[in-house]
Amino acid sequence: MDRLTIIKVGGKVVENTDSLNALLDQFDKISGNKILVHGGGRTATEMAKKLGIETKMVEGRRITDSDMLEVVTMVYGGLVNKKIVAGLQARGMNAVGLTGADLGLIKAHKRPVKDIDYGFVGDVDDVNASELRVLINENVIPVVAPLTHDGKGQLLNTNADTIASELATELSNYYKVYLFYCFEKKGVLVDPNDESTVIYDLDLPLFNKYKAEGIISDGMIPKLENGFRAKMKGVQEILITNPENISTGRGTRLV
Amino acid sequence: MDRLTIIKVGGKVVENTDSLNALLDQFDKISGNKILVHGGGRTATEMAKKLGIETKMVEGRRITDSDMLEVVTMVYGGLVNKKIVAGLQARGMNAVGLTGADLGLIKAHKRPVKDIDYGFVGDVDDVNASELRVLINENVIPVVAPLTHDGKGQLLNTNADTIASELATELSNYYKVYLFYCFEKKGVLVDPNDESTVIYDLDLPLFNKYKAEGIISDGMIPKLENGFRAKMKGVQEILITNPENISTGRGTRLV
Repeated sequence: MDRLTIIKVGGKVVENTDSLNALLDQFDKISGNKILVHGGGRTATEMAKKLGIETKMVEGRRITDSDMLEVVTMVYGGLVNKKIVAGLQARGMNAVGLTGADLGLIKAHKRPVKDIDYGFVGDVDDVNASELRVLINENVIPVVAPLTHDGKGQLLNTNADTIASELATELSNYYKVYLFYCFEKKGVLVDPNDESTVIYDLDLPLFNKYKAEGIISDGMIPKLENGFRAKMKGVQEILITNPENISTGRGTRLV
Repeated sequence: MDRLTIIKVGGKVVENTDSLNALLDQFDKISGNKILVHGGGRTATEMAKKLGIETKMVEGRRITDSDMLEVVTMVYGGLVNKKIVAGLQARGMNAVGLTGADLGLIKAHKRPVKDIDYGFVGDVDDVNASELRVLINENVIPVVAPLTHDGKGQLLNTNADTIASELATELSNYYKVYLFYCFEKKGVLVDPNDESTVIYDLDLPLFNKYKAEGIISDGMIPKLENGFRAKMKGVQEILITNPENISTGRGTRLV
């Protein structure tokens, strides 16, 4: 099987011009097939604030009412996505920016209301691997924004880590998939303020221990849970690291 | 040559849910290859206002400073584009939303400053027909937002009528192109308040006469100038009409 690298970037990396450019330079060096999945939550929160729309988060997940859906559609699908696409084109990479609605790539359903009403948040049902394979075979680089659709005309907000792991899982039927979760740290840290405390090999028992102890918390929990699920479903390798270490492969490896 | 229909929609049509849905229903009925090009200026103006950014227009063209570029990138590339894509997918059309940066579709240069500094406004240099033909051959429907790029990482704001006529002109080398400029009126009107005064056949001398008399004015002038240029460069048919008359072919025909 051919190799396919999926890079997920979020947080501060995509929202600052310098760190975004550094990321795109690193991304350029990856040989073979590649996909970039991005977030943009901070920019969305900032934009919402400017528009007088309050941001409510529950366990790192955004409550998405219809106003907030407009904000994330603009910010993820427009502002962040097209900046990345233009930056990749400038580096000679033939990128195309996509949401889950484009080409019917990712179908989802609105999350059912249990204790919390997340609003227009989508849980993924289906990834259209054949459309992605056509693009990849044409040497096109998909740049995927964290939005999905329900197939009935409704856009939905879906966590970027989840998008990345769903793409990785589905595409592992056709490629040897290397999934990198890139953020501003060198990996998962025992002490969040000390970059020398990277956990290099993380297995499920150790993850559960650190989670119970509160060492791994907040948004890192669903990221790692997604990662372990993808790993068990056949993704070749999953690494949590910063953009500088895409090439070295150093960081937290799920084992 | 195969037939290709290019529909350009702007103004009130795309910015109201009911009229957008009516348009998408009409668009669904077009047989054969098709492309949708959209505007979104009113939504951009409204969004800019909410963000405290002033909108300045010169002869129907938007002055685009860096703040305004962010607004149009969000609104055209995100909000309007993805709503249309989700709506087409819901109708069983395999749409993909694109800007001129995606797949390197439309390269432009920043308009040189003469009397007026338009800011980040792009004049089109080159349309990448081969990428569009690949999509069309796969039965994909491109939905094109009025944004271009300079190939060096800079996104640019480009008038949607211009995008439509540039696509039509370039693609007329490969297809029999039918270009429809759709807006809320039945065609170009002698009396803007009377829909019974549609000019059915408009040639260049009549256009120049009406322009001199002020009957044709504002944004209609560049729209028609673009249209006549495209017609002279080989576009099969150019019609200015409302969405309801896409199927009847009634409206103002450039001859």
